[in-house]
Amino acid sequence: MLSTARSLWILSVILLSTLVLAPDDSTAAGSGAWREIAPGIWKAVIGTPESIDLLKAAGSKPRLEALKEVGAAPLPYDLSKIETERFDGKTILRFPLAREEGIYGLGLNFQSVSQRGKILELRMDHYGGADNGRTHAPVPFFVSDRGYGIFINAARFIRISVGVGVRRDAANPPPVIDRNTGKGWNSVPPSDVIEAAVSGTGVEVIVFAGPSMLKAVQRFNLYCGGGVLPPKWGFGFMHRTPTLFSDRDVAAEAAEFEKRDFPLDVIGLEPGWQSMSYPCTFEWDKTRFPNPDAFLRAMKGMGIRVNLWLNPYVSPAASIYAALRPLSGSHLVWNGIVPDYTLEKARTIFEDLIRREQIDRGVTGYKIDEVDGHDVWLWPDHARFPSGLSGEQMRQIYGTLMQKMVTGLFRARNSRSYGLSRGSNAGCVSFPFVIYNDSYNHREFINALITSSYIGVQWTPEVRSSKSAEEWVRRMQTACFSPLAMLNAWSDGTKPWTFPEVEDVVRDTAYMRMRLLPYLYSVYADYALRGLPPFRAMNLIDAAGASSGMHISNARMKDQYMVGDNLLVAPIFAGEKSRKVELPPGRWFDFYTGMSAGNGETITVEATLGKIPLYVRDGGLIPLIEKRRQSPMPGQTLALEVRAYGNAPAEFVLYDDDGETYDFEKGAYSLTRLKTVTDASGNRRGEAETLRRGPMSYSPISWTFMTSGAK
Amino acid sequence: MLSTARSLWILSVILLSTLVLAPDDSTAAGSGAWREIAPGIWKAVIGTPESIDLLKAAGSKPRLEALKEVGAAPLPYDLSKIETERFDGKTILRFPLAREEGIYGLGLNFQSVSQRGKILELRMDHYGGADNGRTHAPVPFFVSDRGYGIFINAARFIRISVGVGVRRDAANPPPVIDRNTGKGWNSVPPSDVIEAAVSGTGVEVIVFAGPSMLKAVQRFNLYCGGGVLPPKWGFGFMHRTPTLFSDRDVAAEAAEFEKRDFPLDVIGLEPGWQSMSYPCTFEWDKTRFPNPDAFLRAMKGMGIRVNLWLNPYVSPAASIYAALRPLSGSHLVWNGIVPDYTLEKARTIFEDLIRREQIDRGVTGYKIDEVDGHDVWLWPDHARFPSGLSGEQMRQIYGTLMQKMVTGLFRARNSRSYGLSRGSNAGCVSFPFVIYNDSYNHREFINALITSSYIGVQWTPEVRSSKSAEEWVRRMQTACFSPLAMLNAWSDGTKPWTFPEVEDVVRDTAYMRMRLLPYLYSVYADYALRGLPPFRAMNLIDAAGASSGMHISNARMKDQYMVGDNLLVAPIFAGEKSRKVELPPGRWFDFYTGMSAGNGETITVEATLGKIPLYVRDGGLIPLIEKRRQSPMPGQTLALEVRAYGNAPAEFVLYDDDGETYDFEKGAYSLTRLKTVTDASGNRRGEAETLRRGPMSYSPISWTFMTSGAK
Repeated sequence: MLSTARSLWILSVILLSTLVLAPDDSTAAGSGAWREIAPGIWKAVIGTPESIDLLKAAGSKPRLEALKEVGAAPLPYDLSKIETERFDGKTILRFPLAREEGIYGLGLNFQSVSQRGKILELRMDHYGGADNGRTHAPVPFFVSDRGYGIFINAARFIRISVGVGVRRDAANPPPVIDRNTGKGWNSVPPSDVIEAAVSGTGVEVIVFAGPSMLKAVQRFNLYCGGGVLPPKWGFGFMHRTPTLFSDRDVAAEAAEFEKRDFPLDVIGLEPGWQSMSYPCTFEWDKTRFPNPDAFLRAMKGMGIRVNLWLNPYVSPAASIYAALRPLSGSHLVWNGIVPDYTLEKARTIFEDLIRREQIDRGVTGYKIDEVDGHDVWLWPDHARFPSGLSGEQMRQIYGTLMQKMVTGLFRARNSRSYGLSRGSNAGCVSFPFVIYNDSYNHREFINALITSSYIGVQWTPEVRSSKSAEEWVRRMQTACFSPLAMLNAWSDGTKPWTFPEVEDVVRDTAYMRMRLLPYLYSVYADYALRGLPPFRAMNLIDAAGASSGMHISNARMKDQYMVGDNLLVAPIFAGEKSRKVELPPGRWFDFYTGMSAGNGETITVEATLGKIPLYVRDGGLIPLIEKRRQSPMPGQTLALEVRAYGNAPAEFVLYDDDGETYDFEKGAYSLTRLKTVTDASGNRRGEAETLRRGPMSYSPISWTFMTSGAK
Repeated sequence: MLSTARSLWILSVILLSTLVLAPDDSTAAGSGAWREIAPGIWKAVIGTPESIDLLKAAGSKPRLEALKEVGAAPLPYDLSKIETERFDGKTILRFPLAREEGIYGLGLNFQSVSQRGKILELRMDHYGGADNGRTHAPVPFFVSDRGYGIFINAARFIRISVGVGVRRDAANPPPVIDRNTGKGWNSVPPSDVIEAAVSGTGVEVIVFAGPSMLKAVQRFNLYCGGGVLPPKWGFGFMHRTPTLFSDRDVAAEAAEFEKRDFPLDVIGLEPGWQSMSYPCTFEWDKTRFPNPDAFLRAMKGMGIRVNLWLNPYVSPAASIYAALRPLSGSHLVWNGIVPDYTLEKARTIFEDLIRREQIDRGVTGYKIDEVDGHDVWLWPDHARFPSGLSGEQMRQIYGTLMQKMVTGLFRARNSRSYGLSRGSNAGCVSFPFVIYNDSYNHREFINALITSSYIGVQWTPEVRSSKSAEEWVRRMQTACFSPLAMLNAWSDGTKPWTFPEVEDVVRDTAYMRMRLLPYLYSVYADYALRGLPPFRAMNLIDAAGASSGMHISNARMKDQYMVGDNLLVAPIFAGEKSRKVELPPGRWFDFYTGMSAGNGETITVEATLGKIPLYVRDGGLIPLIEKRRQSPMPGQTLALEVRAYGNAPAEFVLYDDDGETYDFEKGAYSLTRLKTVTDASGNRRGEAETLRRGPMSYSPISWTFMTSGAK
């Protein structure tokens, strides 16, 4: 009755139950198990790590030199208090949690910033309307407002209870209250631990010291490989054309941008560039793009980079199908095979096609679609891949594998890229991709931009369409103050000038982004070289920096954010006549006028259509170039205006390089210290001091003291 | 650095990988593995079954004698085509699925009846607004419109893809279509299998032959222990009083029902009867119920049964707390311990208290709350229980364990009970509990009533409150045509007469339910003795019965249903001026007038406030008693009116017994064949023939031929 295989299996289970299940252990990961692997970073291995994990999938290497510069730090708490357990096929992790401790991170979240009091199943998926762990970047990292971070390096769905689920033997149990008549009864009594359960054979856990939240995030980012520096053209405007556009349609669209004097650096082609999709061939459609070389040359002639849409699922009509089929998983996606890109052989087949047909011909980037979910689209969790990985494991890393391959192809050409991916995870921090999705709630888009900053990923609040000219402006404003300023018209065919009554306002907004290039580029250099997130939640303002003791309300945590250290963005949403802004401790100044806005207080700002409210901290410098429609060419010299705000001593380290290659990683970049100096008679002037010699585009440098009456 | 336990564990994992993981097998559960265990029922064991499963938890015993009466049936298909696999700690099951095959069941669903094209994670939970498998009865059973059913007997979360997730090597793959330009592109291409993944060491799979869907459901119900026959008072009206009501408040409420001549058989007490809840003491509150015996006597004197609310989580203030604490799980619920009721010692402690303090004093039933979810309320999946069970396993069966204990206490007194449970599963079919929840969408409540019929559970569309008198009537009408007619006023304090303008209509509706007792009781006897669901989805009409080839539209599958074989209910929802009703093949007649309603066609019926549309099939008999406010006392004789509809030969087997005890299980019941006879001159009359002697309450029997012109 039983097959031999099953008999063997049952025999094994018997052995298993005596040998493995019996000693399900429940022990503190004693301090002996923790090892300091870099300054302020400790690691423990629980159980037997699996053949793949998030960082292995990304090929991440800790940036040890940069971590040394961040420096050592004391243990955030007694790590022996972290308990671990192997039970029921899972690794269970238990981290102490203080009564008022705030927890942030745990995936890209759209409705919430604080994650305390929630149960999340971190699982690669589209955002489905609830912050439940299913998201485009289910990064298993959290950062505590006590100034430390914890990362669970497992390519598994991770179920995590953040201060929920009181244990019978809890050290700090909540009070017992009679619901019938007692006051303060709580339907979710607070627990004194964070508990995580991970299926599979074992995991690595890594603890990052602060002392600030920002420092913990910085260490996490550097441990995962450090942030990304886009090419300068990545800070220009990207427009994605309707899906069935031909080469002529695209050229006409680009010409229209030029004619209307609207910024445009990148054109994105949607599925119709391929001869079949979905599933995909990854080859040019001969009817819509009969001569790709001519098309790409024409685009280059207009100063425009070309980004191609793809999803990874290979059509039977693709030239690479037959070779990839035996290297693919047990299940299809949209009738396309799912190659196992943990296998070098599979990678080579895909990379060869992409390199030869696209990148070598001039394509500069990709939009990697549908590596996230829905469940009914992708393979099931129990799918099997030739490498032995399960569907669950592959689900967590497929976006990572795709980003890694594409990044590698551009790296091999020493040419930076910048594009889009719908799925990301820990380890992708160094890849030139920004997350986007299909949802379109403006407030949720800003919430996602904020929560991306805790977990080493980037998010774009792209614009697609709007119900009103006002909404169009408000969305354009935040797109232009985000990692990627994009109009994604693949379905709607909208143009920046679709609402003629606000065409000028929208153009001004896009030009303001162009002008901010020197500031943004320096901020991103801090991401790439030092691991500091460029766009930041308000509570990532470093306690050791401009302010300390950040206490921002939940409402403001969700709708205002920082760009670098100096610039606070407070978006206006359609319909708002005014909004509240919580200014962190210290004096803050209006970006546009330099006028004093307040001092560590909550202010109310009237909405004006033309401007997104921006504030600069006291002593903040913002370097700007003159307005230009496209990013500068390498070697081009640009005049720089440095705006100084307030009257505190101001300093900013301006970063520059060739703008396109990876040579900066080998040291080919310049650093210039911009600072204000007050002379004996009390007059202020600006000074620029070269800290490091290298490519430097900016000359001459002029200074504008924005705040009148400042001394 | 490693603890001994971990070293041992790692050693074990090494052994494990060679012995167990290596032979992850992927084999057809060859026909040799399938064994016919009862007529028309086949079972296979995949892997090593776990220490607990759904039927073990319920203590279910297949009703072999009744199954023999259902009879043998051919294999529904070649069972060797069912493939099984052990991989990544899961059992994977793969069942063939034909192109147009319809799949029903898979948990209590609120928005959908057909489950084809969905991915469900069957997991005990509250209904959270989507039919995703998280539900109050995540029963892992499905029935196919090809006339068979399949049950996965595992106390585990089960992830099941119903014709979703095309395999690379599928036998019947869907066509490949280019989304760019092809027509009929499908974002979810249909798969030719149902795939299920179950964590843990192994499962039982059981296949039930038809040939009809109803027969497959019937076999499933009997295999799980057979249906329930409530006591006669269970068909009366139940009213639940506000949570902090005292004994006097309750008595006054009962008196008001009497004064207003409104039916009332059961009063339900909410958390305030306990000295503390939540967490619970299970003991009377001395301020609100100073003398429980006197209170229960008074209720009995008014002909009223008393039902007590509880949830299972034990307060530190409970007398049984200290004894249960070491027998409880690792996590608390609302600060209450969670006893491991798979342990006899724990059961005894709880049962002794409940028996002594409540049941022996006259309490007749329970409402078992919050054995379903939410996740943030209950223990985590990785919780550990003293028996060795995990939180996941316990989650699937906790409602089962509670129902089993309570049922056992009433069985021991040879006294039937009828109450409520918020969580149920396979094996609970024989327990006297009806599921309810906190949601309150009228259409969804009816959808749930319909889907309950596939999976061996019961559901009540209880009434609580309404925005209008019209809605109040519409909700009352469906509550009265459901397994449990209940006004649940625990929070709102609503009364049946809260909308005075419809008090009479509501009273008439409740009285109609009282009159239908003989019909309902016989229908439930078919549930208890033969496994036939009393309330039924339209496509459970037996192809061998009144009709064949049922093709009901999706819309009507969700909003009309059968009570037994004869009565079709087509609820009106607030705001509707009319509705469509799909009459199955054959002639159908208006219940109230006997007029012809149609013949296997879709009709439109005008909404009238006073009546819920009811139809009787041609040759259908409906036995009624005279109107009465409370259920009859044992031995009480009642006049019976038998209504005959249409002109086909009519027959109905009337069931009766003592109405209160389990003696019917030992044969103490009567069966009376009611039938119409046409004499030589074409006149019809009714006849009653005793098929089985036993308790029989009905005399005299009168006949009403409802359909004029019938011959």
